[in-house]
Amino acid sequence: MGSVWGNAIKLSIFGESHGGGIGCVLDGFPAGVPYDEAFILAEMDRRAPGKNRQSTARREKDLPKVLSGVFEGKTSGAPISCVIENTDTRSKDYRNLIEQPRPGHADYTGRVRYQGCNDYRGGGHFSGRLTAPLVFAGAMCKLFLRSKGIEVGSHISAIGQIMDTPFDDVHVPTELLAKLRTQAYPVINPRAEEAMLVQIDQAREAQDSVGGIIECAVTGMPVGIGSPMLSPVEGRLSSILFSVPAVKGVEFGAGFSIAAMRGSEANDCMYLDGDTVKTETNNNGGILGGITNGMPIIVRAAIKPTPSISREQRTLHLIDQQVEPLVIKGRHDPCIVTRAAPVIEAAVAVAVTDLYLEAYGYARS
Amino acid sequence: MGSVWGNAIKLSIFGESHGGGIGCVLDGFPAGVPYDEAFILAEMDRRAPGKNRQSTARREKDLPKVLSGVFEGKTSGAPISCVIENTDTRSKDYRNLIEQPRPGHADYTGRVRYQGCNDYRGGGHFSGRLTAPLVFAGAMCKLFLRSKGIEVGSHISAIGQIMDTPFDDVHVPTELLAKLRTQAYPVINPRAEEAMLVQIDQAREAQDSVGGIIECAVTGMPVGIGSPMLSPVEGRLSSILFSVPAVKGVEFGAGFSIAAMRGSEANDCMYLDGDTVKTETNNNGGILGGITNGMPIIVRAAIKPTPSISREQRTLHLIDQQVEPLVIKGRHDPCIVTRAAPVIEAAVAVAVTDLYLEAYGYARS
Amino acid sequence: MGSVWGNAIKLSIFGESHGGGIGCVLDGFPAGVPYDEAFILAEMDRRAPGKNRQSTARREKDLPKVLSGVFEGKTSGAPISCVIENTDTRSKDYRNLIEQPRPGHADYTGRVRYQGCNDYRGGGHFSGRLTAPLVFAGAMCKLFLRSKGIEVGSHISAIGQIMDTPFDDVHVPTELLAKLRTQAYPVINPRAEEAMLVQIDQAREAQDSVGGIIECAVTGMPVGIGSPMLSPVEGRLSSILFSVPAVKGVEFGAGFSIAAMRGSEANDCMYLDGDTVKTETNNNGGILGGITNGMPIIVRAAIKPTPSISREQRTLHLIDQQVEPLVIKGRHDPCIVTRAAPVIEAAVAVAVTDLYLEAYGYARS
Amino acid sequence: MGSVWGNAIKLSIFGESHGGGIGCVLDGFPAGVPYDEAFILAEMDRRAPGKNRQSTARREKDLPKVLSGVFEGKTSGAPISCVIENTDTRSKDYRNLIEQPRPGHADYTGRVRYQGCNDYRGGGHFSGRLTAPLVFAGAMCKLFLRSKGIEVGSHISAIGQIMDTPFDDVHVPTELLAKLRTQAYPVINPRAEEAMLVQIDQAREAQDSVGGIIECAVTGMPVGIGSPMLSPVEGRLSSILFSVPAVKGVEFGAGFSIAAMRGSEANDCMYLDGDTVKTETNNNGGILGGITNGMPIIVRAAIKPTPSISREQRTLHLIDQQVEPLVIKGRHDPCIVTRAAPVIEAAVAVAVTDLYLEAYGYARS
Repeated sequence: MGSVWGNAIKLSIFGESHGGGIGCVLDGFPAGVPYDEAFILAEMDRRAPGKNRQSTARREKDLPKVLSGVFEGKTSGAPISCVIENTDTRSKDYRNLIEQPRPGHADYTGRVRYQGCNDYRGGGHFSGRLTAPLVFAGAMCKLFLRSKGIEVGSHISAIGQIMDTPFDDVHVPTELLAKLRTQAYPVINPRAEEAMLVQIDQAREAQDSVGGIIECAVTGMPVGIGSPMLSPVEGRLSSILFSVPAVKGVEFGAGFSIAAMRGSEANDCMYLDGDTVKTETNNNGGILGGITNGMPIIVRAAIKPTPSISREQRTLHLIDQQVEPLVIKGRHDPCIVTRAAPVIEAAVAVAVTDLYLEAYGYARS
Repeated sequence: MGSVWGNAIKLSIFGESHGGGIGCVLDGFPAGVPYDEAFILAEMDRRAPGKNRQSTARREKDLPKVLSGVFEGKTSGAPISCVIENTDTRSKDYRNLIEQPRPGHADYTGRVRYQGCNDYRGGGHFSGRLTAPLVFAGAMCKLFLRSKGIEVGSHISAIGQIMDTPFDDVHVPTELLAKLRTQAYPVINPRAEEAMLVQIDQAREAQDSVGGIIECAVTGMPVGIGSPMLSPVEGRLSSILFSVPAVKGVEFGAGFSIAAMRGSEANDCMYLDGDTVKTETNNNGGILGGITNGMPIIVRAAIKPTPSISREQRTLHLIDQQVEPLVIKGRHDPCIVTRAAPVIEAAVAVAVTDLYLEAYGYARS
Repeated sequence: MGSVWGNAIKLSIFGESHGGGIGCVLDGFPAGVPYDEAFILAEMDRRAPGKNRQSTARREKDLPKVLSGVFEGKTSGAPISCVIENTDTRSKDYRNLIEQPRPGHADYTGRVRYQGCNDYRGGGHFSGRLTAPLVFAGAMCKLFLRSKGIEVGSHISAIGQIMDTPFDDVHVPTELLAKLRTQAYPVINPRAEEAMLVQIDQAREAQDSVGGIIECAVTGMPVGIGSPMLSPVEGRLSSILFSVPAVKGVEFGAGFSIAAMRGSEANDCMYLDGDTVKTETNNNGGILGGITNGMPIIVRAAIKPTPSISREQRTLHLIDQQVEPLVIKGRHDPCIVTRAAPVIEAAVAVAVTDLYLEAYGYARS
Repeated sequence: MGSVWGNAIKLSIFGESHGGGIGCVLDGFPAGVPYDEAFILAEMDRRAPGKNRQSTARREKDLPKVLSGVFEGKTSGAPISCVIENTDTRSKDYRNLIEQPRPGHADYTGRVRYQGCNDYRGGGHFSGRLTAPLVFAGAMCKLFLRSKGIEVGSHISAIGQIMDTPFDDVHVPTELLAKLRTQAYPVINPRAEEAMLVQIDQAREAQDSVGGIIECAVTGMPVGIGSPMLSPVEGRLSSILFSVPAVKGVEFGAGFSIAAMRGSEANDCMYLDGDTVKTETNNNGGILGGITNGMPIIVRAAIKPTPSISREQRTLHLIDQQVEPLVIKGRHDPCIVTRAAPVIEAAVAVAVTDLYLEAYGYARS
């Protein structure tokens, strides 16, 4: 329990937003995967703050310094460790939050959990900044998965009430995933993108924030991966997806809308495409009985609006024991969803790598 | 990985629908909890099939035989094991499904996963029948949690398009949870219940099935339970909730609808109620930063319509390599949601017990 | 933590000596392994009590009833569960031990650990009887390992001060392991066997007991299995070997005697035997850096003398708060080492199967 | 599996001897433990090489840089991460070892395990240098345990054939443990120390090395910690002790010598010392049925002689496929046992902390 995840691989994430550094250790990662630094940095850059008006003004290079596990340009099989410096920290912004915990944040729960000892500055270990090492780990896993023909990609499915065109869940082209990776805003429908940006601007102008949904796809997954009952693919993916701060819902395939379907609609009928068993629809999101069926895995994560907003709120002051006005200083994204896609993908990539390695082991060439 | 779940407690579920028996082992369960057999049997009965026209005609007593872990009327601290016989099995019903796997079922994925060796009769280890030992384990956990002032209860939030009145998420009375436990259909709003039954009848008449949503609440949870980052309360609960067959979505608090909220709406403002810190709203479902905040935990699970339907479907015949008509014989629930509430509660109770024991250990009196 | 072990497979053992039954669940076991009932029963029989004057007079058939995980003569891939009845229980023998815990037994520690709630009769969950399901699980694992060319066997290395001829650690013939399995006393040197039986007889006559050492070998192990640092093969094997009641020491290769060696003696020099890398000596017991090197794994476990002895002892009476005489009634082995070989082998077979599956996974290439 | 250990805490160790740095992450560590830097550095210094003629000439400061988990002088509850630089690396020394793996080292097994991709320089991830972060983690755990009245200490029990006076296993004074910590050679009997140094000198002069045994004690441990069957205290301790490179045997209490005892000797009779249940002897090493009994935990680890020796050996050359002479260049300890005591203590301290936290949890009462 804690900041460690996985079975065949173990990902350990450490660090506090304004501490001596953040980073991760990725244990059990296969040997011999070429280390593609440009790819890693591009992934880190997709998540990095400060790139546009939608995200926080904090600017950090987020350069991961790899201390171990990479040797002569390839993974060595030993634990991969990386450290990212905290370079742009303005701790004084957060002082008043000790006494008046921010609503929607972990200030109060963290304080109780750690008996008042936790580093509260900038959210400490709870900070969204901790997703940077997750993206690093996810990028490593994507490199491995790519060597097995498996791709992980995503788009912004919704921001506020604006919905993007959903993935064609029975056929998600690799080219589309590649294109989305390079977009400033990974949205399929350009008109939806425009409307989303308007929503964000309106939220910023109102000194408020807005949430959204990321839809993620995994293609090229072999059939027969995963386990029934207490360790299904959905459970494994969801357990790491809820680790991404602000995620409050996770659904697969038709998800919550399957509840209103009839069985005759929801059932995905099988057919043969050449030698491959496929399904005509993909309401089960590529997973049946907890096990992959070879169709794309489709998963969506609901992301709450950034709890840090500039407009005045009223909430409990712990010393005064009164509900009092609160104005949160500092730099805040009016919408973190625009930066969330690579984080969701990273979580999925880590989980899929774990599932893959359980199925095939480390000893197979 | 597989049919084992938990950290401080470990639940191992075994059995196949038409095999020698099903059951579970619950390891690490605290010593000294009085074994309330009447309560256990009542919980088993809530899940049991054959009670009304909404559920399968298969009738089984589902009497759990406790082999170990209970001594002189209390839990002994040793692993609690229970076995439930399979008494009413008609295996011949399922023979033709080897060659033509049922859509929406694990027939095909199970066959690939286990290289054709798995017991396919009645779904084998994938059968919904395997939720019976989960309900047993959940009932044991409820007895423990009750001794700590924690209650777990649920209602049918939706069947098809009919929605029940949601829980008042800032105050879920113990009496309401107790009342729902005793109802044939745990629905808060009697008119919704009527409309739901109509939906189910219509599905049955159409030889079809219908899905739904269960909303579950945990009350009395202490503040400060759980861990940030890679082991949040949401991740722990979701990993076992997706273990319940047919669950395709899990959300906490406002869930997916939080995506369309503004931060100023979504943030739960804190206040003091006597000595207790509470929040005015509960959009975060009792969990902030992965850690409980003392408010009720609110979680919803989307359940797909029973994939076994009587009406003719078309799907792949693996030998003929053709899409052919399929008529599924046997007895099927037109709606499993009516029996799902105790199963969802059981999964939640097991997870909450695990989280509780991690926090307080086994050595505290 | 508790009565569950493993990573790729999970073994859960349950039951109390005089309770409703004992058994195990073996999760994650590969599909398609033929179920050889005669072999399983022969293994159970090797451990069973009551066969000769060296072991307890308690006679139980110890027939494992397999409830799940075996289908049409092969493992199905679903959890394998087995239940063994407790047929010959004389609980009244143990009544007085609540107040005066037996020295060398878990009576006192179990009582504190479980706040006085544990089933104390016959040792309850601490009973040596719980090794019966371990032997069942080990027998299943041996069937799997045999299909991969891996054999696990052992002999009684010492009873009291009498030592058997050790294994030739660089070459342990499969025929020798097979022969030892069929012997009433698995001893290599017949003269040592005779002397050992004399030691046991002397202990019985003195109403006392005597300990010993089991030496176990694993042959046919591929090179490159296991992991360095915190999960070495030695650590994995030892963690389950110390689970066998009465084991107080575990050593590999030269073991404790390596401490008195010079490096030039201890180092195992490599050579090529055909295409295979071998070592001239095997002081490292087939493991270097926590990873198998292809030589036989050699491991020894020290087993303490049965703590239940007929002769009078003096120990604390918890109510009287006085050291008082204690006479333990009931049936006791003067030497459990004669029955320990299949148990030690079972523990090793379970661990080696777990290590093997981590390396090669569950999916066929 | 891999370089991660623990349940309630998770220790993740990373790094390669000549790579970008080594270190560890300690997850789940309790909040509020004062960070005593002087103590940490003193522990690191006890393990550090280059201090005397018995150890390697390599000199490194081994200063742990703490990046996270310590805030305002106390542990924050978030993962504690530390990085140690590799400052004095002479990689060219190790070049020839790719083709001719050193006997007694992991050169060959590591190469197979990681398909030739691992960093072989200086042993890479297999290097004894990786014990430095383990000592750091152990020092943190000692600080926690000390706050609970638990002490961990050790002495050199044997070097070659020279034995130290053993601990008085029923009473290990805290003062003795404190004194041993400050000694250059933690030996109880000064004459034994002298004789040990002579053994080491003789080995060095012979361009050879010598092994030994560390005996470790844990005092102040509460009764009733640990679990029976598959997770006993012995199994937990041994699984991390075998993670210390060169350990080939682990025993508790009387250990292997218990095999030659009679039951009447081996049984530890209980008596009352004030309110405390104690035993007259401690042949079970403070553990009965896998659970602590309140007596000191006594554990010994056998350490093989340094495999890197200066004198010429003969071993397989993988390219030439011939057994050829090998001379290992570089700097080598003729005896690592003199530096092993703090490492063994660290492993024990980590395991005991894990066991303690499982028993008492992370939440305050």
